[in-house]
Amino acid sequence: MTELPSWRPGPTRDRLLAFLDEASHLPVERRIAVLDNDGTMWCEKPRYIQLDFMVDQLRSAVAKAPTIAGRTEYAAVLSGDPQRVAEVGLPAIALALAELGAGLEPEVFADLVREFVFTTRHPTLETPYASVVYQPMLELLQTLRARGFTPFVVTGGGTEFVRAVSRRLYGIPPERVVGTLIGYELSTGEHGPVLRRTGELFGALNEGPAKIETIQRFIGRRPILAVGNTAGDADMLAYTSAGPGPSLGVVITHDDDVREFAYGGAAASFEAAVPFEQQVQEAGWLAVSMRTDWSTVFRAAGPEEL
Amino acid sequence: MTELPSWRPGPTRDRLLAFLDEASHLPVERRIAVLDNDGTMWCEKPRYIQLDFMVDQLRSAVAKAPTIAGRTEYAAVLSGDPQRVAEVGLPAIALALAELGAGLEPEVFADLVREFVFTTRHPTLETPYASVVYQPMLELLQTLRARGFTPFVVTGGGTEFVRAVSRRLYGIPPERVVGTLIGYELSTGEHGPVLRRTGELFGALNEGPAKIETIQRFIGRRPILAVGNTAGDADMLAYTSAGPGPSLGVVITHDDDVREFAYGGAAASFEAAVPFEQQVQEAGWLAVSMRTDWSTVFRAAGPEEL
Repeated sequence: MTELPSWRPGPTRDRLLAFLDEASHLPVERRIAVLDNDGTMWCEKPRYIQLDFMVDQLRSAVAKAPTIAGRTEYAAVLSGDPQRVAEVGLPAIALALAELGAGLEPEVFADLVREFVFTTRHPTLETPYASVVYQPMLELLQTLRARGFTPFVVTGGGTEFVRAVSRRLYGIPPERVVGTLIGYELSTGEHGPVLRRTGELFGALNEGPAKIETIQRFIGRRPILAVGNTAGDADMLAYTSAGPGPSLGVVITHDDDVREFAYGGAAASFEAAVPFEQQVQEAGWLAVSMRTDWSTVFRAAGPEEL
Repeated sequence: MTELPSWRPGPTRDRLLAFLDEASHLPVERRIAVLDNDGTMWCEKPRYIQLDFMVDQLRSAVAKAPTIAGRTEYAAVLSGDPQRVAEVGLPAIALALAELGAGLEPEVFADLVREFVFTTRHPTLETPYASVVYQPMLELLQTLRARGFTPFVVTGGGTEFVRAVSRRLYGIPPERVVGTLIGYELSTGEHGPVLRRTGELFGALNEGPAKIETIQRFIGRRPILAVGNTAGDADMLAYTSAGPGPSLGVVITHDDDVREFAYGGAAASFEAAVPFEQQVQEAGWLAVSMRTDWSTVFRAAGPEEL
């Protein structure tokens, strides 16, 4: 079978495969790949799927306690008005929404995430969320595994949100996903210690330079392949490129407003000094055009996802 | 070949194997095992091997800058006087020693660890450090892998210290080791971002209840098998036992002063409300007697470790 069947023949696919061939000669412990999640593994427009989940949780919470809808951050996101959202700021809204999970045991939270992701349809693409995963990226994962790579998802999203679905969506086990971390608190229950989510982050939002620290903290070594799509991934890409020996930075360019969405590489929660497109060019990273380089964008919906 | 050949036939080995048989019927994603490191995977007496390493680093540092030997924590540990060490306190000494790694890139630090562990002999056992690994635990790892378990090391020691040697000593890759975390700082070098260790911890010392949070943060789910040897492991054992379905807590008892050392389950850096031995008994964890249950204690030294 041909490798990467949804990647159109051409210089992008050639360079990617040439790097993978070269990397196959490195010791297996160096074959580490890190992949951003939103906009790299699955669709992040019209807004992050995790944000859709959180707003769904907010609506349930408001149904039980209507007064909370008046909180500035909640009112902004419930209004659906992009200007109000921008005024309050996405990071502030995300932090306020994260509080909705406070008190939940991680297993219960993961069940809520799975229920949402595997039963809800994407708001504009008319397909289940489980089907807005990029088929060419699933093929890349398959190719990486066949060549002895260990792939990790390094996301700006919530670690527990992505972990809840990573095995079913990508075949990546929970311990190979790291993102923004939530705090925990321990208490003693009938059967022993009980761990519950708090409403506060543990450490920084996992974007920009934080991704480099996270990689060392969780994976313990420098990757040789990094894939991202916004300025929030630039540091992770640069760190990967700065290592000794062969390495490749890959950037997914969202330029297909027919099959997906067309937008640039600015990060929602991270200010970059230079435009991301300029960074990509200066660093020599491999820019992948969704329109030109991918013959298929989304995975086919399996009946189990509907 | 017989499983667990260095585990003597009897009720301990029987109960361990009965649990592993039972666990083989669980979904593979639930077959998570967590293993403490010092005193569980390798010898922790007469003092932690990481402490030996840090004192070695301290001696090198003192040779370059003799005045630092006057610092209270350093003077205590250099004196070799257990009473002075106890007065200053092991956690305070360990924190002061951790500062010696400040400014090092993680790869450089890992090389220093490997050089020390693989070229130094244990101070009293007259054998290389690489050979004070418990042979029965290596066999347990092999049995776990054969039954589809994913084993993780969850240590109170430094994450980067244990990761540097985990693959060679245990066959466990760096990302499956988590312990006490160190801080990082980023700067920009000639080739891109440069990550260096700071002298300060990131988060708490990974002992006691901290191990539960660490397990959720890194592994993302509750283990069904936990192995430890001191009160610093009690919370991890209790959390494992508190899960739904089959689980097993295993406690290595150091009762063999002929082949190893004889000492109780008090933790060096963690105060327990009740004696650990009492906790083990009340919880029904499987107490493994090194003297009675293990026919061999240490792995045979391979020529590559000498």
